[in-house]
Amino acid sequence: MLYEFFEKVAVLEKQGKIQAKLNVGEPDWSAPSTSVREAVKALKQKRDKYASAAGEPELRQKLAELHSCSASNIVVFPGSKFGVFAVLKTLSPGDEVFVFSPHWTAYEGMCKALGLNVRRIELKLENKWRIDVEQVAVALTDKTKLFILNSPNNPTSCALSEEQERQLIELAKSRGITVLADDAYRDLCFDGRKERRFDKSIAVLNTFSKTFGMTGWRIGYAVVEEELAKKLVSFNQLTVTNVPLFVQAGALTALEQKQKVASKARRLCKKRANTAKKLLKGVFEFVSPNAGFYLFPRLPQGADTLAFVDRLLDSGVAIVPGQAFGPYERHVRVSLCAEDAVLANSLEKMVEAAKE
Amino acid sequence: MLYEFFEKVAVLEKQGKIQAKLNVGEPDWSAPSTSVREAVKALKQKRDKYASAAGEPELRQKLAELHSCSASNIVVFPGSKFGVFAVLKTLSPGDEVFVFSPHWTAYEGMCKALGLNVRRIELKLENKWRIDVEQVAVALTDKTKLFILNSPNNPTSCALSEEQERQLIELAKSRGITVLADDAYRDLCFDGRKERRFDKSIAVLNTFSKTFGMTGWRIGYAVVEEELAKKLVSFNQLTVTNVPLFVQAGALTALEQKQKVASKARRLCKKRANTAKKLLKGVFEFVSPNAGFYLFPRLPQGADTLAFVDRLLDSGVAIVPGQAFGPYERHVRVSLCAEDAVLANSLEKMVEAAKE
Repeated sequence: MLYEFFEKVAVLEKQGKIQAKLNVGEPDWSAPSTSVREAVKALKQKRDKYASAAGEPELRQKLAELHSCSASNIVVFPGSKFGVFAVLKTLSPGDEVFVFSPHWTAYEGMCKALGLNVRRIELKLENKWRIDVEQVAVALTDKTKLFILNSPNNPTSCALSEEQERQLIELAKSRGITVLADDAYRDLCFDGRKERRFDKSIAVLNTFSKTFGMTGWRIGYAVVEEELAKKLVSFNQLTVTNVPLFVQAGALTALEQKQKVASKARRLCKKRANTAKKLLKGVFEFVSPNAGFYLFPRLPQGADTLAFVDRLLDSGVAIVPGQAFGPYERHVRVSLCAEDAVLANSLEKMVEAAKE
Repeated sequence: MLYEFFEKVAVLEKQGKIQAKLNVGEPDWSAPSTSVREAVKALKQKRDKYASAAGEPELRQKLAELHSCSASNIVVFPGSKFGVFAVLKTLSPGDEVFVFSPHWTAYEGMCKALGLNVRRIELKLENKWRIDVEQVAVALTDKTKLFILNSPNNPTSCALSEEQERQLIELAKSRGITVLADDAYRDLCFDGRKERRFDKSIAVLNTFSKTFGMTGWRIGYAVVEEELAKKLVSFNQLTVTNVPLFVQAGALTALEQKQKVASKARRLCKKRANTAKKLLKGVFEFVSPNAGFYLFPRLPQGADTLAFVDRLLDSGVAIVPGQAFGPYERHVRVSLCAEDAVLANSLEKMVEAAKE
């Protein structure tokens, strides 16, 4: 059913019949103009040959400074998604990976592709998507090797409190479990959190896609302990070789204005989250986002989610059914990345469709 | 030993002490200026967002025309290396893959990473690196799922005759085995071979790296039957998402002048191969290349290869010991990609070092 829905979205999109693509996790802001300029310059200077599988020294150094570590702890990837895959690839088939649901679809697909066993800890709207660390502790087995922590979370746009994160990380450490922190949305925490500091038991993955609106540049990076870094570099050598130098040049320049760009993006996200809260309140249930650009509302009791998303789609608004993120059939994921009028109009259509 | 040698190369390179990098499989010609122009245009037009995991329709269509198939048979990858990995990933752990040695190092590393069993068929200089198809037939088992055919070959720069290829492909077909044709160097056959036509039992991998000198752009593609294409697209979705649109724009334009670019590159390669033949004849044994830009000469009986490459390195010339390509301890791989004077000088140094 989900597959048929996505096929329909693809067809309507080709026909230009979707006015609001609130189904894609893609910022509507553009890459920094300085990044475009630097990439263009690098291309014209023929910086387009083979390069280091670890990433360029200057970029690694700059990222290392941000995360309080050494350049040897940084590995650059063609997207943080590939970085997540590369880290998971270092585990052995049969190893157990904990995923907190609702979760980004790709995690489960990757684990399956790599023969890893996914253990889903299903979080609840009623608990404000909080993780019960004691429940996690009880669920651990000898085979548990890694937790995937995606905070702020896709699809809820809720970030755990720093205290909650600390507890989970402590638990992992005490059991010799690696924490894979997928920090794709961390810069977009409304409370403006700092970069995650290097910690040898955490494998941090981050990306230029969301903060900088550079989704299609395909560049992300890992912050990991040195032995793991070496394995990841070897995996790059074996698969993708390197990220194009002109892409890395654009990314390096982006970092120079990270504070400014992130703060602007955060303000925009917060404003949109407020719009969504105001318009959907009373009809949908949801936890108010404290980060990022998604909303993961629950439909009224008895609603048929697939019929709902289908009706919306027919009116030109694409969103994603909740079951794409785990057993959340009554939810939908809405990406709030659209200009004011389009966003407000789409949310109003959601309210109408829910009342039908 | 090999590892220490490569470390030494890396250190000397950083110190700027290598005058001739004949160790890297990288053309010294530049990407077409029109490709740079199109990529720059695409970047400025903000064609830098998420895109199809299969590749852009226009690029796939153009590649399909070259290979006499449909766009649905084409999948675009961030490098053909990643395409080889993706095809191998469709096999199951324990499956057997035939590799003809000497072979590109990455094949064995990928198979190992994916739990596939590599069966090496070792070819001989004495037989002019020809494949004995009957010997292959006898070596097959029930677990053999795929042959990797890399013709022209890295490191020998010898292309099989079309008749030899036909026999091997027939054998594979008769046993239900897939042929993975890594055609990275095919455009550089001195006899100017045509694009390989689509055949559902062959998985063709090709790249823009060698013909167009676009190594660092990271773009390649597969020509495969539709069911396999779908699996490869899913794997892209799970790992690399898509090749940047601005990179695809540059690649599309490159295809427009493929004939001209390839023919120029072929002439240059042939000239360099002739230089190498002339200078190394009588001291080293080798099969004259009929393609590409490598030479895989054998040192005189009793020579110590590692001492030889080390001496050369100290004189500023980097090449690769043969054992990186299988059990070919007396060989070395020389990449002939350097301007006339540097190339001649380096080859002369090889002759001197061999006589020491």
